[in-house]
Amino acid sequence: MNNEQRMLVSLLPEGADGALIISSENKRYFCSFPSEDGFLLITRERAYLLVDFRYTEDAAAKSDGCEVVAFESLMESLGGIIDRDGLHKIMLECSAFTISVARPIEKLLALYGAEADTTGELDKVIEKLRIVKTTAEVEKIMKAQRITEQALSETLPYVKEGVTERELELELEYRMKKLGAEDVSFDLIVITGAKTSMPHGVPGDNKVRPGDFITFDIGALYEGYHSDMTRTYAYGQITEKQKRVYEVVKTAQQLGLDAVRSGVRCCDVDAAARTYIYHAGFEGCFGHSTGHGVGLEIHEAPAVSAKNEGTLQSGMVITVEPGIYLPGEFGVRIEDTVVVTPEGCVDLAVLPKELIVL
Amino acid sequence: MNNEQRMLVSLLPEGADGALIISSENKRYFCSFPSEDGFLLITRERAYLLVDFRYTEDAAAKSDGCEVVAFESLMESLGGIIDRDGLHKIMLECSAFTISVARPIEKLLALYGAEADTTGELDKVIEKLRIVKTTAEVEKIMKAQRITEQALSETLPYVKEGVTERELELELEYRMKKLGAEDVSFDLIVITGAKTSMPHGVPGDNKVRPGDFITFDIGALYEGYHSDMTRTYAYGQITEKQKRVYEVVKTAQQLGLDAVRSGVRCCDVDAAARTYIYHAGFEGCFGHSTGHGVGLEIHEAPAVSAKNEGTLQSGMVITVEPGIYLPGEFGVRIEDTVVVTPEGCVDLAVLPKELIVL
Repeated sequence: MNNEQRMLVSLLPEGADGALIISSENKRYFCSFPSEDGFLLITRERAYLLVDFRYTEDAAAKSDGCEVVAFESLMESLGGIIDRDGLHKIMLECSAFTISVARPIEKLLALYGAEADTTGELDKVIEKLRIVKTTAEVEKIMKAQRITEQALSETLPYVKEGVTERELELELEYRMKKLGAEDVSFDLIVITGAKTSMPHGVPGDNKVRPGDFITFDIGALYEGYHSDMTRTYAYGQITEKQKRVYEVVKTAQQLGLDAVRSGVRCCDVDAAARTYIYHAGFEGCFGHSTGHGVGLEIHEAPAVSAKNEGTLQSGMVITVEPGIYLPGEFGVRIEDTVVVTPEGCVDLAVLPKELIVL
Repeated sequence: MNNEQRMLVSLLPEGADGALIISSENKRYFCSFPSEDGFLLITRERAYLLVDFRYTEDAAAKSDGCEVVAFESLMESLGGIIDRDGLHKIMLECSAFTISVARPIEKLLALYGAEADTTGELDKVIEKLRIVKTTAEVEKIMKAQRITEQALSETLPYVKEGVTERELELELEYRMKKLGAEDVSFDLIVITGAKTSMPHGVPGDNKVRPGDFITFDIGALYEGYHSDMTRTYAYGQITEKQKRVYEVVKTAQQLGLDAVRSGVRCCDVDAAARTYIYHAGFEGCFGHSTGHGVGLEIHEAPAVSAKNEGTLQSGMVITVEPGIYLPGEFGVRIEDTVVVTPEGCVDLAVLPKELIVL
């Protein structure tokens, strides 16, 4: 067993004999083998990675802290372990098990006089573990961030009058992958003109025109870990109003960053950015949370929102991304991903945030 | 309600008042709106698309055959419909609902004296509908196939000594997207040398060398529909054994294609290709099924396998993709996607299958 597995076991509620994990993110977290197929069973004594014949060799070479069990019939192999190890209660990863997959497993357990815990308690325990990142995890997020910034820097020269959002998106993606990203971190947002007022606009055939803002909300995936960053650029001459909104968002983002420190409540980070925006006259123009956790998933705990009174801990990785959105006109968002420390935070983004006119 | 919705209702078992659908594929199929979030409830009288505020406008513009319901609380909106329409039994899409998402819905239904059917029966009914494609669906698959072939043709000139699998994969993906693909159909397989003996090899840093086979198992996604094709090329001078294996696979694939016709059993198509390979001396070297259905998912019903005694119907879209894999040496696979007709099939692939030496 490795450290992550032992930590999980230490947090299992009394009476639970093991955890059955199916998502590739959590398989990566607990045994370094993120296959789409297969199951990871972590008991109090040992961990089993159950895979079919296609993955046996690869799993044996790459997995960590577990015994690889090649199955012909998952049910038989799993049943054999349940029986031999005398397991009575197995917690299922409810956020990943579909009903179709869970049902036969529940029946199998019943056959051996055991039961499945489908309360979702396991998912909470795993969230608690994953919410604080190790140095190794932070390094992967940082690498993803470096790739993202390099790819963006290489793509900015393509921003010219008449180029489409979709073309810019594709160039960015191509460069990220050339630079070693295993994938993009999410469907990249590259939007221009009035569309920048949509926080989750989808790149299309809109062409860049003078006077536009162009928003890049982008990230890369590196060894399973995500990065997340937003920069808004001006193309050609923009209005005084655009400049003012940009400055308000930039200051709000800095106030958000300044508020980050272990022990601070998430809602207070949100408030630091939000209050400034509202006081600057843009109440109602910032309709999303100030940030979220980033790691094996692009959105994970903690939510940096007005509702979350939980406190930040050292090693959490969160985004700070306030924005102002003026429907029919334009929008501005600026986002960095940072690591929480006792003194404040380490900003993983290095690209400047001053207003840049392309 | 549209035609697909009415067809679904006509197949609902007695006592079921509606179907709750969550997967983006099935939302696309039944209402042309494949959002990641939201729920589609199809009752015997009408269809409701429940989306949150972010999607309301888009859903109203793009969805088909349903009433768009913007919810603040899904539970309240869904509860309201259950109550008002007097629904007593709702079938859940069990292959897509996770336990975490299903549980609160089951509780909600219970609150209104209704129940959730989690037997998986709905998934079978939907499979039955989706297994036969409409002309509009075939056209999208064909468009995805055209994009794939065009991108491959543009990428082949990049095949040179020293180029890596990963580089070729990336060029292909970039070109597919430039040509209008919304995504790749699956993680593209571009493998060379001894790795071609792995049916699901992952592109890496292997470099193309003279005497190699290079296998491209590739596809594009177009308006939600997948294409799937495999071509194996030679680079430089290859051995007599390689040539012989290539010819055996080519003939086996043709025999498989020749066997396709509505009314024929899937297992007989599999046998047509398999028997030839086995008789040619390669028993044990073809470890996967001859084919599978293709549509909104890359692998869907029917399985063209030795076990499936179900018969082909006109309008099914399937792959025919036998291969021979010689571990440590090389492998060859040739795959077309075809539409089943009463007389045989229409092959959607047009790229040649003669052995091409690059």
